[in-house]
Amino acid sequence: MIKNMKICVLGCGATGSVFASYLMKGGADDIWLVDLNKAHMDAIRDNGLLLKDPDGESLLKGFHTAYSADEVGPCDILIVLVKSTHTHSAMQGAASCITEKTAVVSLQNGLGNDLDLAQFVPENQIGCGCGRLGTVLESPGVCVSKPAQGITNMYIGPVYGGELAAKACKYIVDCFAKGGLNPEYLDDVRPALWKKAAANSGFNTVCAVLGLTMRQVHEDETALALVKQVLKEASDTAAALHIADNLYDGLVSDIPKAVASYGDYYPSLAQDFLIYKRQTEVNTLSGAISRFGKIAGVQTPTCDVLSQIVTAVQANYDKRYKDKD
Amino acid sequence: MIKNMKICVLGCGATGSVFASYLMKGGADDIWLVDLNKAHMDAIRDNGLLLKDPDGESLLKGFHTAYSADEVGPCDILIVLVKSTHTHSAMQGAASCITEKTAVVSLQNGLGNDLDLAQFVPENQIGCGCGRLGTVLESPGVCVSKPAQGITNMYIGPVYGGELAAKACKYIVDCFAKGGLNPEYLDDVRPALWKKAAANSGFNTVCAVLGLTMRQVHEDETALALVKQVLKEASDTAAALHIADNLYDGLVSDIPKAVASYGDYYPSLAQDFLIYKRQTEVNTLSGAISRFGKIAGVQTPTCDVLSQIVTAVQANYDKRYKDKD
Repeated sequence: MIKNMKICVLGCGATGSVFASYLMKGGADDIWLVDLNKAHMDAIRDNGLLLKDPDGESLLKGFHTAYSADEVGPCDILIVLVKSTHTHSAMQGAASCITEKTAVVSLQNGLGNDLDLAQFVPENQIGCGCGRLGTVLESPGVCVSKPAQGITNMYIGPVYGGELAAKACKYIVDCFAKGGLNPEYLDDVRPALWKKAAANSGFNTVCAVLGLTMRQVHEDETALALVKQVLKEASDTAAALHIADNLYDGLVSDIPKAVASYGDYYPSLAQDFLIYKRQTEVNTLSGAISRFGKIAGVQTPTCDVLSQIVTAVQANYDKRYKDKD
Repeated sequence: MIKNMKICVLGCGATGSVFASYLMKGGADDIWLVDLNKAHMDAIRDNGLLLKDPDGESLLKGFHTAYSADEVGPCDILIVLVKSTHTHSAMQGAASCITEKTAVVSLQNGLGNDLDLAQFVPENQIGCGCGRLGTVLESPGVCVSKPAQGITNMYIGPVYGGELAAKACKYIVDCFAKGGLNPEYLDDVRPALWKKAAANSGFNTVCAVLGLTMRQVHEDETALALVKQVLKEASDTAAALHIADNLYDGLVSDIPKAVASYGDYYPSLAQDFLIYKRQTEVNTLSGAISRFGKIAGVQTPTCDVLSQIVTAVQANYDKRYKDKD
């Protein structure tokens, strides 16, 4: 393991705090946490970060904290974990952390985060990762990690190749593995990202727009057709970009298992949309497939229209017709 | 005026009853009314049909009534006014009314009714009409007509040319004009049908899916873009079918006037969808544009997806997430 890489975690909400904890548990010893949440940053600075996970509690001390990336200085690795809608402003604010030797690794959800980062750094400095981890920020300085059965499959690697990104991603994978997660390094992380994001995009946006659970969508022929159209558009786009040959068949054959496991729930984007009335991550799911479709010259009409609908609704939650039963 | 044409009105709910009343007021003297609503049919048979409109009340006697088209026998004109989702079964049930000399005229809402009829009769026997008339069935035998300022612009004519359809449509226009409506005969009614249906399709489906009024849609850039996409797809399809050259510019320039007049309301399809949880007429609006687009070889992705969404939701009203505020 390469020692003494200076890491800055940009965006330390629940997920950023949990990932930072596993990095430290795994041996990383020069970690800066940056977040606008002053109470959380101050609690970590004064008392350390308490990680609760199925293995128990770990009080982790020695993090550097800051309210702004300006205070951090040049880093070896900048891990981006802000909401994707804030990536642009966060990266502008982090300019002083980044040199030509800084790897910038997005562990944000969904697709297209690399396109956002490519506006700020050369492609060989860009890495991405994906994985599902339930996280909660319980109180300032206290974060909770709920990996299913203690194990989460994560995939981390360069997006466009490049030694610099590869070295940083291997370092992160090393620390995560020693810290208790179950990460895998990939020379090209894009097929894994696309598989996961494509699978999520279909049910997430369709369940949101229809107001139905995954099982209800699965049981309605027209609704399920919409999901499959999204999967097809994602698969065609990934193929046109030479990322993966035929994601579609695998994605369709995975549907029954997903419905058996999570069928009675609304997927996360649908929860944000229906219940919490939050800005959703649509731009990194079907919205990102639309963006990549344009780059690849692939028509993505279902993703286009579903994304437009989600975008228009989330700008007008307060005005929307309320269903009084 | 040609006398003694035998007319059967297939589907005598509020609108069918009102139209039948104006036909009789205008001189038609051999009119059969067919509806499954026995109380309504029996009341008309026993006491006549009472029409209430801004000019006062008219008690109209002499209608023939039937619960089923089987009892009517061959007609000169079959006016179709069932819900478009019931056209197929109604036309099957009306087979004994139709000969090679029968004109079949749909006065149903929206587009594509002629495609449904063309499955049963040759094209030269098919007419269509459009117009907006507020109608209510107040009680059995009593119908209400609320034409704005007493005047309603209706357009009626053959869809595919043909003497037979032309003669029947002229007869209907004659009766309506003498009866108190404001109809216009057109040698080709399709441009008028398309203009009206295209204008309706955009706001109707978009307001429904977004849960926003016309004004709220008009004020949101993304939502308004969806409406304009529908108008563009309708216009392109009408052009490819050689129905009308460029509906789009006129449709877009009409938007501000429509929003000024009806902006604070949900259009009828959106009311069915959001408030009453009824089966909507989506198949004759954006759904019909999709159907015609396929015939014309024009891509209609926005209409396709919006129609799929409306179709999937109206099959699952009872299961849909309820917005508890």
